[in-house]
Amino acid sequence: MAPENLSCLLSGAGKARFEDRPVPEITDPHDILIRIAYVGVCGSDVHFWKHGGVTRKVSEEEPLVMGHEASGIVHSVGSEVATVKPGDRVAIEPGFPCRRCNRCKAGKYNLCPKMQFAADPPHTHGTLARYFKIPEDFAYKIPDSLSLEEAVLVEPLSVAVHGVRLADVRPGQNVLVLGSGTIGLLVAATAKAFGAGAVFIADINEKKLEFAKEFLGCATFVPALDSTPKENAARFEKEMNLDDGVEVVLECTGVESSAQTGIYALTPGGVFVQIGMGKPDQTLPMGAMCEKEMVVKTSFRYAPGDYDISLDLLGSGKVSVKPLISSIVPFESATEAWEKTMRGEGIKNLIQGVQE
Amino acid sequence: MAPENLSCLLSGAGKARFEDRPVPEITDPHDILIRIAYVGVCGSDVHFWKHGGVTRKVSEEEPLVMGHEASGIVHSVGSEVATVKPGDRVAIEPGFPCRRCNRCKAGKYNLCPKMQFAADPPHTHGTLARYFKIPEDFAYKIPDSLSLEEAVLVEPLSVAVHGVRLADVRPGQNVLVLGSGTIGLLVAATAKAFGAGAVFIADINEKKLEFAKEFLGCATFVPALDSTPKENAARFEKEMNLDDGVEVVLECTGVESSAQTGIYALTPGGVFVQIGMGKPDQTLPMGAMCEKEMVVKTSFRYAPGDYDISLDLLGSGKVSVKPLISSIVPFESATEAWEKTMRGEGIKNLIQGVQE
Amino acid sequence: MAPENLSCLLSGAGKARFEDRPVPEITDPHDILIRIAYVGVCGSDVHFWKHGGVTRKVSEEEPLVMGHEASGIVHSVGSEVATVKPGDRVAIEPGFPCRRCNRCKAGKYNLCPKMQFAADPPHTHGTLARYFKIPEDFAYKIPDSLSLEEAVLVEPLSVAVHGVRLADVRPGQNVLVLGSGTIGLLVAATAKAFGAGAVFIADINEKKLEFAKEFLGCATFVPALDSTPKENAARFEKEMNLDDGVEVVLECTGVESSAQTGIYALTPGGVFVQIGMGKPDQTLPMGAMCEKEMVVKTSFRYAPGDYDISLDLLGSGKVSVKPLISSIVPFESATEAWEKTMRGEGIKNLIQGVQE
Amino acid sequence: MAPENLSCLLSGAGKARFEDRPVPEITDPHDILIRIAYVGVCGSDVHFWKHGGVTRKVSEEEPLVMGHEASGIVHSVGSEVATVKPGDRVAIEPGFPCRRCNRCKAGKYNLCPKMQFAADPPHTHGTLARYFKIPEDFAYKIPDSLSLEEAVLVEPLSVAVHGVRLADVRPGQNVLVLGSGTIGLLVAATAKAFGAGAVFIADINEKKLEFAKEFLGCATFVPALDSTPKENAARFEKEMNLDDGVEVVLECTGVESSAQTGIYALTPGGVFVQIGMGKPDQTLPMGAMCEKEMVVKTSFRYAPGDYDISLDLLGSGKVSVKPLISSIVPFESATEAWEKTMRGEGIKNLIQGVQE
Repeated sequence: MAPENLSCLLSGAGKARFEDRPVPEITDPHDILIRIAYVGVCGSDVHFWKHGGVTRKVSEEEPLVMGHEASGIVHSVGSEVATVKPGDRVAIEPGFPCRRCNRCKAGKYNLCPKMQFAADPPHTHGTLARYFKIPEDFAYKIPDSLSLEEAVLVEPLSVAVHGVRLADVRPGQNVLVLGSGTIGLLVAATAKAFGAGAVFIADINEKKLEFAKEFLGCATFVPALDSTPKENAARFEKEMNLDDGVEVVLECTGVESSAQTGIYALTPGGVFVQIGMGKPDQTLPMGAMCEKEMVVKTSFRYAPGDYDISLDLLGSGKVSVKPLISSIVPFESATEAWEKTMRGEGIKNLIQGVQE
Repeated sequence: MAPENLSCLLSGAGKARFEDRPVPEITDPHDILIRIAYVGVCGSDVHFWKHGGVTRKVSEEEPLVMGHEASGIVHSVGSEVATVKPGDRVAIEPGFPCRRCNRCKAGKYNLCPKMQFAADPPHTHGTLARYFKIPEDFAYKIPDSLSLEEAVLVEPLSVAVHGVRLADVRPGQNVLVLGSGTIGLLVAATAKAFGAGAVFIADINEKKLEFAKEFLGCATFVPALDSTPKENAARFEKEMNLDDGVEVVLECTGVESSAQTGIYALTPGGVFVQIGMGKPDQTLPMGAMCEKEMVVKTSFRYAPGDYDISLDLLGSGKVSVKPLISSIVPFESATEAWEKTMRGEGIKNLIQGVQE
Repeated sequence: MAPENLSCLLSGAGKARFEDRPVPEITDPHDILIRIAYVGVCGSDVHFWKHGGVTRKVSEEEPLVMGHEASGIVHSVGSEVATVKPGDRVAIEPGFPCRRCNRCKAGKYNLCPKMQFAADPPHTHGTLARYFKIPEDFAYKIPDSLSLEEAVLVEPLSVAVHGVRLADVRPGQNVLVLGSGTIGLLVAATAKAFGAGAVFIADINEKKLEFAKEFLGCATFVPALDSTPKENAARFEKEMNLDDGVEVVLECTGVESSAQTGIYALTPGGVFVQIGMGKPDQTLPMGAMCEKEMVVKTSFRYAPGDYDISLDLLGSGKVSVKPLISSIVPFESATEAWEKTMRGEGIKNLIQGVQE
Repeated sequence: MAPENLSCLLSGAGKARFEDRPVPEITDPHDILIRIAYVGVCGSDVHFWKHGGVTRKVSEEEPLVMGHEASGIVHSVGSEVATVKPGDRVAIEPGFPCRRCNRCKAGKYNLCPKMQFAADPPHTHGTLARYFKIPEDFAYKIPDSLSLEEAVLVEPLSVAVHGVRLADVRPGQNVLVLGSGTIGLLVAATAKAFGAGAVFIADINEKKLEFAKEFLGCATFVPALDSTPKENAARFEKEMNLDDGVEVVLECTGVESSAQTGIYALTPGGVFVQIGMGKPDQTLPMGAMCEKEMVVKTSFRYAPGDYDISLDLLGSGKVSVKPLISSIVPFESATEAWEKTMRGEGIKNLIQGVQE
């Protein structure tokens, strides 16, 4: 008999297995079952593949279904579901908050202490399976103009939208994006869609910057590895003809020296948003920060409204994610997609859902 | 002949001199001349006394009139002055912005690149003189209930108000103030006046904390020097019966480990404001910050409205500064006040203006 | 046999009946059953008593259990309830949102289109019964210092807190409260707790104003019925020695001329919040509003966090509601409490819960 | 001898005269003299032409130089001017605040009580002259890509930017613009540049709407004159497939029924900005407003930063004003431009500056 809910699990660093797991049952009348179409690979998947987890790890005894960037087709719906129906093509928001704590009620469900986020050890399984169950309001119907492949990118785009909203990017502002990986590219594209005056993107990888330049049509900057952050910031301002730095810095690398460069490049009163995750302890130029009276915000996942804005940006054509899709492998070759991403090949590598 | 405008100048580390300088002339019709009543001593004065300046230093060739916390009586006014008249008792806001740059016009004159701040080397002299000239709108009439001695404290209180406004302290919020020097005490008192639910104050100096407890009536915490910031934060939460940290941290010490403790003690989504100045480079727990999606703001001096709020707090009795005044020395003994403050004696030491 | 869940229902204008209804069953594991202690009477109850409803009306066929301001004791709890236990004394937030719509998720559950608010015809029954079932997170444990009688007032206080938060009342601001009924008094008390510089309260009923003066210790104003709103505003500013109006107006009467007076009394750039409900169409001085570049906000019930702040204000003693409680009648005399309130007797009249 | 500063003055309703007036002298070292290139005609000019003023009127004894929308070339500069030099092509911001009052310092100079705005009776003359003197920071250098004709439109575009900023239009939001005159068109174009999801524009003049459709590429709506505002709003929502109204309404007509329609078309929690000026007293549906918990803001002129954003929108090509310029008449035919505008001919009619 064919497996009913083939799933790809991680049971340790570098140890994946495919297993037929029970099809999730709809017990809550607001839940729906999604037939997964595509799953994306991001840096955290690679970290899991290499290390078996971050703080909490997977194990042979407690293997975990991977995947959190995903699109799919609604398969079946609970008795009270009103907003989607079987057959609908949807992007999936993969974290389900408790809806009852003060943070959920105050509009900050990304900070819910009971958040159930896809592929979070030990027990919250992910989207890399034939079926995935979610509450109806975490499925977002996609416009006809958007493919299911592109819909996978709604997740990282929502990370970008969240950071740009935290920065409150406004028309006319100069924005520096640090890092030109998937998130950096999407952050820059989102900042432009929010009306930013000029968007600059920096990376030490010139090849990546070439792509960024073409994708975004924006000025690029290569920090010199043998210069101090202060020197790099000064050269950046000079090259870009900025008198007085940028109003917004969006840090997407997690690298300490990159954050420092960003802070030096910021105009007094400016906003710096840390989107990338890196070293747990980082030294910041607090003296310069105090004189600038600036704001540092850290960005965590996405909050209410971010998915809606992402879909508006994609549906209206203000942001395009198609050029970022580098490869698609069959479900059974999921580990290849992780390996590829680990080797730095391509920008966004996808895994196809289970085929009939 | 008696000196007309006796002034106390610093010409190097530990080198003060008294000198008669020309009485400032009113050329701008909106300017006024103040007869200085009292001048306060703060940490930056002590730093100047010890080191002759911060980045820019005073010298024998370019000595500087000291003083920036001051009160006085209006002596004479320009032809278009409408808001004050000779004889008015005033608190002095000692920094004069250009009023023309984008930051000034946008309501952020504390970030004006052309700011002329009292006692700023090499050429912007301070308030420690018989007379001091200012634009009329930087003189604030004080209520009858406030003495000229107390009016000196409007300046540090405005630093506190500025930080508390940046933090946007709201009723019901739990607030941790780090440091119980003059600024820490005023920050805590201001947070209470802004309606904070509970205000906690921390310091390693238990004697200072005793005073804080009495002055503010709030719970106090002593971080252990042999514990990590994380451990101190955990013990703080336990001692104060907080499930989940505080919503606002106001850092008034400038000490790196104190900032770290504050960040660990903050609830997710909380706000941390750096008011104290310390080491130019400081390590922050960026990993914890990212998971908390928090905000760090740095606070620089005071902005439009801060002096008005300070005077409202003092006039209404919501904040009292009288208990903070520790000593008053005659003008000619100004250096004694600096020495006293350097030795950690008292909270706020004042210097009397020049007597007839 | 004694009735198990004696309830007071309205079946038409002036037609109340007492009926034993089934004790609500806990089906959702997060629900709890409250034994009602006290129920308050407000203007909308009186409107129902007089007219049988507002837009939607009660009827013989569809009678409605009345009551939405209430306190009680937790009687029993669902299997997953973690925050309260039987015996806990609680204030009740009487509107239960869907938690799933965009407004709920964005932190604005008061605007939820599926809101189930107590005593809302035809089918959402109220609190005027022996038992009332609610989700655990809409029960707020009250401090020992607060009586169950006072806890009834948490509901109208939250209406006040919501309006004051919308106005964003800040230290030093001058605030004019229009109307000195329960809501007006609580709004004024809340504005003071938020640090307002001066709070003024206006009413045409001088007796009520006498109470307000004593309760709040604030300046009062009586608009003249034969003056225009503009004239009344001018006299108000003159009597209060205001150069330039107040920064915040909180309208708690719903009366058109009162709103107009408030708008004229507002300083340019000020904020006007409409809290009271009155005529559906009201004429506003749009010309004056445009020149002032002001903000009008309408306030609807309460939003996440308002109950928490109310309890903080009461627990800390910043706001006291005890003086507002005018009478308590037994459950069986509920209609007397409505009659009393209709006649304008007392400020807040309470109905006791069902006794054994 | 040729006139040195030929000026066009209004001395009564329909009474214009041309007169040589003294060339303004630069006394403030930050002032500059502009050689006017073009002056635009707006509704308020027409109102002056018809009525001789609004509240304050011009007269034979106190005639007034007209004009407030203008561009020009820097002719000469004061001794401390650093940001522009003779020959620079500039857009002119025509209102000069006192820089000293609390509103100026708080970033709201449009509310300055001492504002000197061009062409404001009795004594503040306007731009319709050969030369016009302004402070250097109210001259904005225009990019090479912008003509001096187009630069005139920076003034009305700044009115639009100000209103859109007050509304805080964000990506993804649905926006309804009421009125398709110059301001309505610019408001709609600005809302699009701010990232609005869908922008709708309504007008009763179908010919104007045709232009709007072509200029903006957005959906249009014609309110029926024999329907109620509520009915029109309902039909609007139906035609546009909106479940729940728009998040932002920008009212640019000043017409009462238009404002009412806008309020009914607004989603709960939405923002309505009144930009157009009309009847001094207007009836609003306060009952509906209260249930929606909405915000009404009135917009007055422009504030710090608005001109910068306008120039960014024009320089980047996000907004184009060229299609709005309908005619250009010589300086001596200024009254023709007023007549044309009064007859509803064209969108923006310009008057050329004095030729050699």
